Amino acid sequence: MKKHNFSAGPCILPPEVLRQASQAVLDFDGLELSLIEISHRSKNFVAVMEKAQELVRELLKVPEGYSILFLQGGASLEFVMVPYNLMKNENGRAAYLDTGTWASNAIKEAQRIGQVDIVGSSKDKNYNYIPKGFSIPGEADYFHCTSNNTIFGTQIKEFPETPGLMVCDMSSDIFSKPLDVSKFDLIYAGAQKNMGPAGATLVIVKDEILGKTGRNIPAYLDYTTHISKESMFNTPPVFSVYVSMLTLQWLKDNGGVEWITEVNKQKAEVMYNEIDRNSLFTGTAEKEDRSSMNACFLPVNGVKTEAFDAMWKEAGISGINGHRSVGGYRASMYNALPLESVKTLVDVMKEFERTNG
Amino acid sequence: MKKHNFSAGPCILPPEVLRQASQAVLDFDGLELSLIEISHRSKNFVAVMEKAQELVRELLKVPEGYSILFLQGGASLEFVMVPYNLMKNENGRAAYLDTGTWASNAIKEAQRIGQVDIVGSSKDKNYNYIPKGFSIPGEADYFHCTSNNTIFGTQIKEFPETPGLMVCDMSSDIFSKPLDVSKFDLIYAGAQKNMGPAGATLVIVKDEILGKTGRNIPAYLDYTTHISKESMFNTPPVFSVYVSMLTLQWLKDNGGVEWITEVNKQKAEVMYNEIDRNSLFTGTAEKEDRSSMNACFLPVNGVKTEAFDAMWKEAGISGINGHRSVGGYRASMYNALPLESVKTLVDVMKEFERTNG
Repeated sequence: MKKHNFSAGPCILPPEVLRQASQAVLDFDGLELSLIEISHRSKNFVAVMEKAQELVRELLKVPEGYSILFLQGGASLEFVMVPYNLMKNENGRAAYLDTGTWASNAIKEAQRIGQVDIVGSSKDKNYNYIPKGFSIPGEADYFHCTSNNTIFGTQIKEFPETPGLMVCDMSSDIFSKPLDVSKFDLIYAGAQKNMGPAGATLVIVKDEILGKTGRNIPAYLDYTTHISKESMFNTPPVFSVYVSMLTLQWLKDNGGVEWITEVNKQKAEVMYNEIDRNSLFTGTAEKEDRSSMNACFLPVNGVKTEAFDAMWKEAGISGINGHRSVGGYRASMYNALPLESVKTLVDVMKEFERTNG
Repeated sequence: MKKHNFSAGPCILPPEVLRQASQAVLDFDGLELSLIEISHRSKNFVAVMEKAQELVRELLKVPEGYSILFLQGGASLEFVMVPYNLMKNENGRAAYLDTGTWASNAIKEAQRIGQVDIVGSSKDKNYNYIPKGFSIPGEADYFHCTSNNTIFGTQIKEFPETPGLMVCDMSSDIFSKPLDVSKFDLIYAGAQKNMGPAGATLVIVKDEILGKTGRNIPAYLDYTTHISKESMFNTPPVFSVYVSMLTLQWLKDNGGVEWITEVNKQKAEVMYNEIDRNSLFTGTAEKEDRSSMNACFLPVNGVKTEAFDAMWKEAGISGINGHRSVGGYRASMYNALPLESVKTLVDVMKEFERTNG
């Protein structure tokens, strides 16, 4: 029995990717050497890095004038790099949208570096919706938002128009649906949801926006350093980049972002239909802002969940406990999760209602 | 035929570690899930992180009062974090020893943040020796050095006494020989030599030296952030930490640092004896400063190396081309390289001399 892996991240990866990754740890490219014991400057690994970048460009139709990087430090280091690279050294000012834990963390880091205008926040309702109708000051060096909030199960469906630069943390929904990269100046994403294992961070940045702050930026924190070294300024996280490449190749081979958009739509429909139908559960996020990646739901008042917990475990389901900030349950339905897993969970929810309703 | 892997890094890892890592990518801990698709907060992965830290503590006999972290960004990000965390915000000043490319890179980053006294440099002789007899100003917030210089094949055999804090980049020789951690205040090392795959950075830091600069440090760059979150401030590089844990366990199972010290001594002796004996090659580093990890050697004037290159490739040797800054050859003999591989290379050198001398 294969597990139904609803983990919020690091999360499920395609079985064929895991098989190839496992093999490469033993013998890579027929070199009689492991992927993880060769030089990152070998032609074999340079080809991996280039292929990974090319796949990002192809899958997201990244226009000319953007660079693609695989860095380290996760979104948390990007929270620092973004203001360092984009906020003016003198009188730096940026606009942030506060949609949850990670957005707040990004705000905290920007506040160390310059002035931050929080243009909208859903903190008043435990982040169960996406603020709309806010205005972004024209003086802001950039606007920053988080496209999907894993903890609270909300997702931006329509991005606002911005007077200046547009920056987005897409850690938990990149590659899950169509994206017009040209509307963004900088996109970043930790690999460990739809792209690969933890340890790599994807950055897609418009070259012309860089080098304009007047700040003396430490080399590792300066995007231009990594661009000039083609993402090989220092030893990259070899394994994470390789497995990301395999996962992006899997996505391409199956039909790309267009294909996965349909799959993800189906999964979300099946999941949310059951949350809305089932008398024992209730969804936590506002319907119009519901995430197609993370569906959060609570047992209704008085419902005891011990039997439910036993049932889903029995069905081979793992990783659906909600984050402590919300409680209840969270079904994360990243790209590699099959529709079948969602149907299994829905069946368990129905059975729980039938036997405990 | 298994390759003789002399790669300078990422470098050879023990075959049993590769087998275990490969298996964990398919199924970890009997969970029916891959190591790289489970939550880093799962008890299974938390156990890995704790075990890795415990093994570092045990193998290096780390005293009380030190924290052990597994971060990201390699030594290059440490070049930034060290001055951020240790250089006073007002009139910050540090002393650096310039022993090669990586030491110079560390100096460049510190210079962005405060005043740097370069107390010694071997740049005058293309870094083929370790400066000695220098003095470290008492006003320096800390002294920084690089214990082993992979590119130039030199290694510090005796660390200087310091009036203040002692910081060392041990990326390429940590775990290769005995170390008195109590003489250091902060040690860091990229994993990809003696510890594991690229993507993780080990930091061993004396807790009491932190939080004293008066600087508002970005969260990711602040060691105290990571210490307070037990190295789980954000998603750690799961695979790299796991394989590091396996490699450290391998070292412990075989007899620990005491055992590997003897093995490394033997390998270095066999290698340098041949470099000194062979009439067609000459070592580049001063004898007293020769690295036990990286032996650099050049063909003597007039010797054509095409036949040699064909011979070592034929013998299954890989990764001995020298770095472009030195040229010639570099035999990297990290912990996992067996003595047999060194003997194979030496045999090829002898045979080359016999047939081409």
